[in-house]
Amino acid sequence: MKPIKVGLLGLGTVGYGAFRVLARNQEEIQRRAGRGIEVTKIAVRDVERARALVAGACEVVGDPMLVVSDPDIDIVVETIGGYDLTRELVLQAIANGKHIVTANKALLAVYGNEIFAAARKANVMVAFEAAVAGGIPIIKALREGLTANRIQWIAGIINGTTNFILSEMRDKGIDFDAALADAQQLGYAEADPTFDIEGVDAAHKVTIMSAIAFGVPVQFDKAYVEGISRLAAIDIKYAEELGYRIKLLGITRRTDAGIELRVHPTLIPAKRLIANVEGAMNAVLVHGDAVGATLYYGKGAGAEPTASAVVADIVDVTRLHTADPEHRVPHLAFQHDALSNTPVLPIEEVTTSYYLRLCVADKAGVLAEITRILADLNISIDALLQKESREGEPQTDIIILTHETQEKHINAAIAKIEALETVLSKVTRIRMEALS
Amino acid sequence: MKPIKVGLLGLGTVGYGAFRVLARNQEEIQRRAGRGIEVTKIAVRDVERARALVAGACEVVGDPMLVVSDPDIDIVVETIGGYDLTRELVLQAIANGKHIVTANKALLAVYGNEIFAAARKANVMVAFEAAVAGGIPIIKALREGLTANRIQWIAGIINGTTNFILSEMRDKGIDFDAALADAQQLGYAEADPTFDIEGVDAAHKVTIMSAIAFGVPVQFDKAYVEGISRLAAIDIKYAEELGYRIKLLGITRRTDAGIELRVHPTLIPAKRLIANVEGAMNAVLVHGDAVGATLYYGKGAGAEPTASAVVADIVDVTRLHTADPEHRVPHLAFQHDALSNTPVLPIEEVTTSYYLRLCVADKAGVLAEITRILADLNISIDALLQKESREGEPQTDIIILTHETQEKHINAAIAKIEALETVLSKVTRIRMEALS
Repeated sequence: MKPIKVGLLGLGTVGYGAFRVLARNQEEIQRRAGRGIEVTKIAVRDVERARALVAGACEVVGDPMLVVSDPDIDIVVETIGGYDLTRELVLQAIANGKHIVTANKALLAVYGNEIFAAARKANVMVAFEAAVAGGIPIIKALREGLTANRIQWIAGIINGTTNFILSEMRDKGIDFDAALADAQQLGYAEADPTFDIEGVDAAHKVTIMSAIAFGVPVQFDKAYVEGISRLAAIDIKYAEELGYRIKLLGITRRTDAGIELRVHPTLIPAKRLIANVEGAMNAVLVHGDAVGATLYYGKGAGAEPTASAVVADIVDVTRLHTADPEHRVPHLAFQHDALSNTPVLPIEEVTTSYYLRLCVADKAGVLAEITRILADLNISIDALLQKESREGEPQTDIIILTHETQEKHINAAIAKIEALETVLSKVTRIRMEALS
Repeated sequence: MKPIKVGLLGLGTVGYGAFRVLARNQEEIQRRAGRGIEVTKIAVRDVERARALVAGACEVVGDPMLVVSDPDIDIVVETIGGYDLTRELVLQAIANGKHIVTANKALLAVYGNEIFAAARKANVMVAFEAAVAGGIPIIKALREGLTANRIQWIAGIINGTTNFILSEMRDKGIDFDAALADAQQLGYAEADPTFDIEGVDAAHKVTIMSAIAFGVPVQFDKAYVEGISRLAAIDIKYAEELGYRIKLLGITRRTDAGIELRVHPTLIPAKRLIANVEGAMNAVLVHGDAVGATLYYGKGAGAEPTASAVVADIVDVTRLHTADPEHRVPHLAFQHDALSNTPVLPIEEVTTSYYLRLCVADKAGVLAEITRILADLNISIDALLQKESREGEPQTDIIILTHETQEKHINAAIAKIEALETVLSKVTRIRMEALS
């Protein structure tokens, strides 16, 4: 069979990683795919640099449209990133009958519905394993491996930068800023780390997983997103004392009222396997009604792990693209005409438990006032830890772990607690998940 | 589209589990599969019992050939187990043009080559996700998710019974026999537990993974198999003191000399995530050249987790069976004409490191004799622990952790050590893996 022809958009970390893995493992990959896979054309901004990298192995052009519209190319691999240009390029490639492989979580979380609809119309495949959790084949697990299940929830450590920072903060007892600086120095965080540390990247990824798990459209605009930049070292320490770890989790859950879709720092029991995922590693915990909990762990970023997923997608398309489109695996796991319009719950309606840290005056009666406020709102207390006040200091920390309650109730309680004269600063509130 | 018709062979734990999951989640499954999935006929030995269970939902027959030869049935799901009858039934079903879904690891590890060849000839699919690690979609990960990689090694906790027993032995400090009795009482071990505790079940599973990972035929007869029944509580304790856990691992590795394929108790560093997989859970660690290490964790047995994999296979076949056979995912991940004949190494040629426990006379010079034997065979020592002799006892335990060496060298060393007068009993030898 003649080789399948691949056009590459971009030759950065991911693009060049895919190029190298395809070249290095070509014999093994061909034995799996049943035919050769050839990168025939690459479009990049810096043509000279790319020509030096590929050393004559294929054509390098400056205009991405020359890849997208090349009649000899079967699969367009998009590794540019960002929304605007890539949306246009991907839609044009689809219109030209190209199959798409992309690692672009932002593009799919925001424009996925449009892109998948266009792909369906053009009878082409869009594969995006690399968009979530890098080299871990989590999209395939959700879309194909767990199809027997009513998936109940997913909780994932799906951003390596923030997990590295949280591991550093815990290991070394350092503050966020110091840990971020470490991460930047070691190449785990970008110069502008906003997308990672503010949870946006994780929210893109959990949005995609949510759609596949529950058969709903991608709806990034409905996600609740809270990062780790305001997390204090002291809370990581208190969490530890209580038997918990703090992780930035992407969580999506099916409830009777709707779908939860949220990213935020989360206390999880230290004894859970996923609580022990350290450094820049990723892990996704999926709970289905038949299988129970399954966990998928590996490297979530980096040239080679991401290339692993990109190239696996190329092999998938090579193996399966000739099937009649009615008998392909649907892009979002569910048939396009069987998506549900289950609403995404606003965060105020989410039910979970909470870690609260209060800085209070070291006076009699403080605790009685606080616990009365919680009781009045029907929020029951699971654990309470009052720290001894440091010598000579008139204030002390109180840590409260609540049982499950709706976020709007905890908000009401916090407002009342903060209004107390004996409560000396803003209440720190971190959500908790048992993951059981 | 008209529903796809499924015939079920057997209605035991797995068969009835699949029947129930299909019934319970039929709406969600249909939204994924694109058409209904109907169990139309079940063959069982005890027809009356089965009729009561399915309550008129489908036909129940006593003769499995009535399922295998039913012209209306598209997919035959084999959940009987064992080799002889099932081999005949599966081959007949294939000859009749039925697609096969099976959870039968023994059948595939022993007769897989014959069955896959027959399926290729008949243009039908054989799906077997449930054969390895129950509900964890590890076959899909290896066959499709990691196709970019040269897979270097796999190490898996793939037998829940033995992992439960080892967890019990460690937690409670009890001996194998007591832990086995616990496991039997709790339903984690069968009345005749031989296949599980002697490693045969794990060997079936690692044989299948080895074929998929390295593109070789299944060759169960070449596997080295050693179970946990001779494992002493004291070795679990000593391993713990040295920072290790003992797990029954199924290991397969690609080396320049050939493929390793082995099941045995193994010391692994306690800090590895897989070392913390407890109770009846399963986990498979896969190392690929591009992705690095990925881990897959979940329930490896039980009605619903196994059904999760069986039903996912049914959905896979439903989605993909109309594709032309040249463009399907190959049964063993590699194209049938691209399998390699890389030999499986005999255990004597395997290179690994070792834990040795020696019971020696508490006399001067003993250690010098032992270390001299190791040095003469070029076996270097990574750690050595001499226990204080218990009061009034003239012997003591010496624990040696070696660096890597070939098994034949360690065997030679053990023979010489056991011949020493000061060595009072057989040397206990347990293999070690760093898994890094």
